[in-house]
Parts: sequence; C-alpha cells; structure tokens
Amino acid sequence: MSNSIQDLKQLLSEAEVWDKTMEFKRWDFIKKENSTDTNLYFVDEGCIRVYFTEEAHEHSLYFGYEGSLISALDSFLSGNPSSLCIQCINKTKVRVISKTTFKAFLRQNSVASNLWMEALSELSLWHLEREKDLLIQSPKERYERILKRQPLLLQKVPHKYIASYLRISPETLSRILNS
Amino acid sequence: MSNSIQDLKQLLSEAEVWDKTMEFKRWDFIKKENSTDTNLYFVDEGCIRVYFTEEAHEHSLYFGYEGSLISALDSFLSGNPSSLCIQCINKTKVRVISKTTFKAFLRQNSVASNLWMEALSELSLWHLEREKDLLIQSPKERYERILKRQPLLLQKVPHKYIASYLRISPETLSRILNS
Repeated sequence: MSNSIQDLKQLLSEAEVWDKTMEFKRWDFIKKENSTDTNLYFVDEGCIRVYFTEEAHEHSLYFGYEGSLISALDSFLSGNPSSLCIQCINKTKVRVISKTTFKAFLRQNSVASNLWMEALSELSLWHLEREKDLLIQSPKERYERILKRQPLLLQKVPHKYIASYLRISPETLSRILNS
Repeated sequence: MSNSIQDLKQLLSEAEVWDKTMEFKRWDFIKKENSTDTNLYFVDEGCIRVYFTEEAHEHSLYFGYEGSLISALDSFLSGNPSSLCIQCINKTKVRVISKTTFKAFLRQNSVASNLWMEALSELSLWHLEREKDLLIQSPKERYERILKRQPLLLQKVPHKYIASYLRISPETLSRILNS
C-alpha cells in the first residue's frame, strides 16, 4: 500500500467518517457484473479479486488484501454500471465509505484532498506498469516485474489467480517458481 | 480529448504560463529511452507515439495528436528516468509546460487543481479500459472497443502503429477494416 493511501486511511479513521464495516464469506460477491457500485473499500482482513468476464473467460484485473483500497474503479469514477466483479476469495472484512461521504470529506480537508491527488497519480503509474506487464512477452520477466512491484501479492493471492493475472498457465507459474 | 483537459488547457493559455513552444520533424524524439522528462506537452499539430522497447520489439503505449496532453507519464509523476520513448511520427508542434511551473499554477488556482484531479481520474479510467483491451482475446472486439473509445486515433495514426497497439499484424487489421 502506498504512503498516500495509508495516510488517507489514517485521516478517515481519525475523522470517523466510515459509513460502515462489512464482512463477507469466501466466494461472496461485493459487486456483481453490470451493477453500479461507487463505494470505496479499505480491506482490513481477507483477499479480494476484481475481474471481468469475456464469454466464459475470467480476466483478473487487480487484487486487494490487508491494507488495500479497492473499488470498482470504473463504476466509482463514472457512477455508471460496469462489467467489473468484486469477489472475496477468502473470508473478508472491509470498511466502507460511499463516494458521497468521501467527496464531502475531501472538500473539507485539503490535506486529504492532496493525498487523494497523489493517490490518483500513483494509480495511473501503477496502471502504466501493469500495461507494460501485459505487453511484455517473456513470462519470466512478467513474473519478476510483479515480484519486484507487488511482492505481497505473491504471498496473499492463490497461485491460480496469480497465473491468470500473469497470463500464464498454473504449470508455467510452478515452473518459474521452482526454477 | 476530455473536457477536463480541454478546460485546463484553456486556463493555462489564458494565464500564459506555457514555458515554450517546440517544433519537431518527423521521427524526431521528444524523449529517448532512460532519460528523465517531467514536461507536459499539449499537441497543437502533428502526431506522437509513446512506446517502450523489449529487446528488439517496440510496444506502443499511447498516442498524441491535435488537442492531446502528452507526457512520459512515469517520468513526469516520479521525476525519475524511464524506459518510455516519445517520438514524433509526423511534423509536430507542441506547447510545453514544466512540472514545476504546472504545480505552481495548480497551487494558485483551485479550479485548475480540481480539473487536474478530474483529469487524473479520467486517466485511471482510460488505463483500466486499455488494460481490458489488452486482455480481451478477440482481435475484432479489441478493434471495436478502440473505435468506440478513441475514434480519432484511427484517423490520425498510421495503421501499422494501430496494429501494434492492438497487438495484431497489419494484415489482420486490414482484414478487420475491410470486413
């Protein structure tokens, strides 16, 4: 988790502006396909996968675990329904803040507003690196880039999802991990 | 170009804060590999490609043409050298603003600051859609998504780069265009 997100979480906790806490069982959906969800979720415990489906194929976009800030980014930003699914892949506990509460908080708090701007910059940077991950042809290099950038991901997320995230088969991932 | 970027450009022009105007010939580099470039470029004329190289292979990341705001996003945000190359694929004219000037302007102008926050949100959304483009398996669907989201791209950018952007061969692109 980046410093700006961590500091923002701290500010939100100090101001006690969380709308609620929610608990989910393994395989529960926080958001299903084609629904609208403009909440932000701070993960206190558990593991979350965000993906979309192309015909029968599920494409993993990003993951959340302890300390992550997760949303259905497109629905959060646009306010429209989106194809993204948010699913808990373990028992999960999150703190929830609605976009309305969040925006009101940012308007009142210029430090939080600057942290959010920083977080959005980091998010763009993160997406750019992810885009490079997807374009790079060597599976081993893709794996090494993730290991360097998101070392926790490999500890927190089951390998079959990591493989899908890296666009390789679970067998290829095992081979890389054992080499 | 999104409305927030357009409005921001308008504000920068009214305040006359551009650091300079630059002109480039076809194939000129605005930024070469492993250099640092924290400028923002507003394209007045021409066409720009941003890419990185993996061994001998060039991966196109994004393009700029009349009205676009372009930077080496990673170098701009981090202030560090980056692997991105910015190359003019036509005779190109840009207005340049340094990160220092830009940040000072945002600090003084809360309207501009809010527009920039909106632009960063749109950028994240754009990246998310691009990530989906890269994951989707059907070349025709990839093409149709781009056509819908960035119709100008197909008019402004030579087809060989569009093909590379779509991760298909120029022949496959011709087949899609003629079908």
